Amino acid sequence: MKKIIFVLALSLHVLGCKEKNTEQTKIIDSTSDSNIIAIEQQGAFAVGGTVKESPGTFDPIAHGAFNPTDQSTEGQTLHGDHASVFYQIPVNARDLPLVFWHGYGQSMRTWQSTPDGREGFQSIFLRKRFPVYLLDQPRRGLAGQSLEPGTLQARTEDQLWFGIFRMGEGTEFYPDIQFSKNPEALDQFFRRSTPDTGPLDIDLNIDAVSALFDRIGDGILVTHSHSGGQGWLTAMENDNIKAIVSYEPGSNFVFPEGSVPEPISYAGGTLRARGVAMEEFKKLTQIPIVIYYGDYIPETEVENPGQEQWRAALSMALKWTKAVNDAGGDVSLVVLPEKGIKGNTHFPMSDLNNNEIADLMYNWLKEKGLN
Amino acid sequence: MKKIIFVLALSLHVLGCKEKNTEQTKIIDSTSDSNIIAIEQQGAFAVGGTVKESPGTFDPIAHGAFNPTDQSTEGQTLHGDHASVFYQIPVNARDLPLVFWHGYGQSMRTWQSTPDGREGFQSIFLRKRFPVYLLDQPRRGLAGQSLEPGTLQARTEDQLWFGIFRMGEGTEFYPDIQFSKNPEALDQFFRRSTPDTGPLDIDLNIDAVSALFDRIGDGILVTHSHSGGQGWLTAMENDNIKAIVSYEPGSNFVFPEGSVPEPISYAGGTLRARGVAMEEFKKLTQIPIVIYYGDYIPETEVENPGQEQWRAALSMALKWTKAVNDAGGDVSLVVLPEKGIKGNTHFPMSDLNNNEIADLMYNWLKEKGLN
Repeated sequence: MKKIIFVLALSLHVLGCKEKNTEQTKIIDSTSDSNIIAIEQQGAFAVGGTVKESPGTFDPIAHGAFNPTDQSTEGQTLHGDHASVFYQIPVNARDLPLVFWHGYGQSMRTWQSTPDGREGFQSIFLRKRFPVYLLDQPRRGLAGQSLEPGTLQARTEDQLWFGIFRMGEGTEFYPDIQFSKNPEALDQFFRRSTPDTGPLDIDLNIDAVSALFDRIGDGILVTHSHSGGQGWLTAMENDNIKAIVSYEPGSNFVFPEGSVPEPISYAGGTLRARGVAMEEFKKLTQIPIVIYYGDYIPETEVENPGQEQWRAALSMALKWTKAVNDAGGDVSLVVLPEKGIKGNTHFPMSDLNNNEIADLMYNWLKEKGLN
Repeated sequence: MKKIIFVLALSLHVLGCKEKNTEQTKIIDSTSDSNIIAIEQQGAFAVGGTVKESPGTFDPIAHGAFNPTDQSTEGQTLHGDHASVFYQIPVNARDLPLVFWHGYGQSMRTWQSTPDGREGFQSIFLRKRFPVYLLDQPRRGLAGQSLEPGTLQARTEDQLWFGIFRMGEGTEFYPDIQFSKNPEALDQFFRRSTPDTGPLDIDLNIDAVSALFDRIGDGILVTHSHSGGQGWLTAMENDNIKAIVSYEPGSNFVFPEGSVPEPISYAGGTLRARGVAMEEFKKLTQIPIVIYYGDYIPETEVENPGQEQWRAALSMALKWTKAVNDAGGDVSLVVLPEKGIKGNTHFPMSDLNNNEIADLMYNWLKEKGLN
């Protein structure tokens, strides 16, 4: 940053112009609205996790060769169960970074390019000058080193998720869906999934994301689906989370003990809420929260489990919103089609109208003074 | 880019200055040498891979719920065995992109921040205005969706790899090593490893990387360790690979059939070369190739298998270099300590002197007219 301003100042000086440095700074600021993403710093690191140790003493001569028949682990460690983070800090960055946490079976790819190849929230919000942190939770994607063994079944289940992700039913897209009909887009969409490399353990996830906020300080947590409920639990643990934007939270809604609502049954399962101490619950009333749900969520029971799961989630989210707000909180729940925004799947951040979805989020952040 | 130039032109005009647009373009170009990484485009995509299909018909009502007890996969597909790519194109980019391919047990993290938190080759070469493509090969990291089942053992084996990666012996660093003694650096180093999520299959890897070059066109392949040999095989398949930079290739050296050297035995194993048709081998003589090896590689047999493996690899690489050059090729093999560059581990691209290592690579590219 300094160097450009200097070069400009010098050039303008040579040209005999007398405009002050502040003016030149303004000129450079305009890059944030240009076609260029100006990055001051970017990098990657692991955060959270623990270390497993095998008893004994490691002998590097006897057991130091890569040899699948030598199963000795004596005296060795394994570092794992961390999250993996990629971050980018734009020039002239806003104060509060955005931390993006993916959902079930997904990874940081959720926030990168869309399935049809356009920019995702990573680049969209960098252009809006937010520092952006993308994470893979423990035992997922680049954070694949699990400290517990795992078995990966490689089951054919694209169409199961096509339904649960509310793309459509069977192999047919819902009408007017905000998803490209180019077959390459659906191919890319399916290839964004990546399996757990060990048992799913939300406590590990929460610890790692909390450790991330310990490291970076105050910030805004953006969750999706399965990370939604984990996000509430993380915010109860870490005061550095100053706001939450939650896309389609699906489970782990927390209520004060004694006020936990009845489980909600739906075709395919039952959605249960969690009880926590009132003192813990109260922490969720201290930060602004916004929740978004997309389209194709029925108001009453239907046959299709892919839709039913979200009828239950939305119904629980409404109860949750009321509970937090009744306790003095500031939760807004936005059902996109009720605002005239139609056709969104379970992934509004990468649907065809994701710029509109990003603007909604940005305007909410602005309204709350978080930009 | 256009927008800034316009804003600058306008400002200068308002200020009554008459410098031509070309001059302002030059001012902006200077950002490439500044503290800012100016990105014109960045994104992520999957490439390569296939689709597995289960016979039958999918019933979204009967089998559309997420239910671990419902193992039905009838009529469903699974997309997998692709590579996952993150790319960044800087402003004013050079013609030939760099494609970075990690080694065994590693991922695109190899090229991102160093274990001690400095910039890796991703950012270093972006600053040098190369388009940068980082990949996770099939069944690794963000490309975790394997079409074959896999078992992950979570074995404690940090110290095994500490030895093989030539950080030191047992838990002791080698003297004068180019690696931070801050314990956090070693912790981060271990956490960059991520396991295979399915059986390792180099044909899948080669197909995916070749598909990446089909997509992006001409480029330079940068390999590390296990991807070194796979890199030769990929270059024999895809003419878009215009040069190869190979850090510490470890296996899969290819020779013309009939001229395959004897296997090299070492403490802990045997390194075998591969035979290919002369016509295929000849393709490797058509592009410039540079190979780098770091420090702590013994010239004669030692007890320590962690070092022995690389004595064998370097010995084979020397034979290979001669074979390709004798057939009219252009391979340079650089043993860093022979050039006075001491203390490098198996990961020169992220060692303490990685800027010096990057400059070496850059100067080689320049010498070959590839910059």
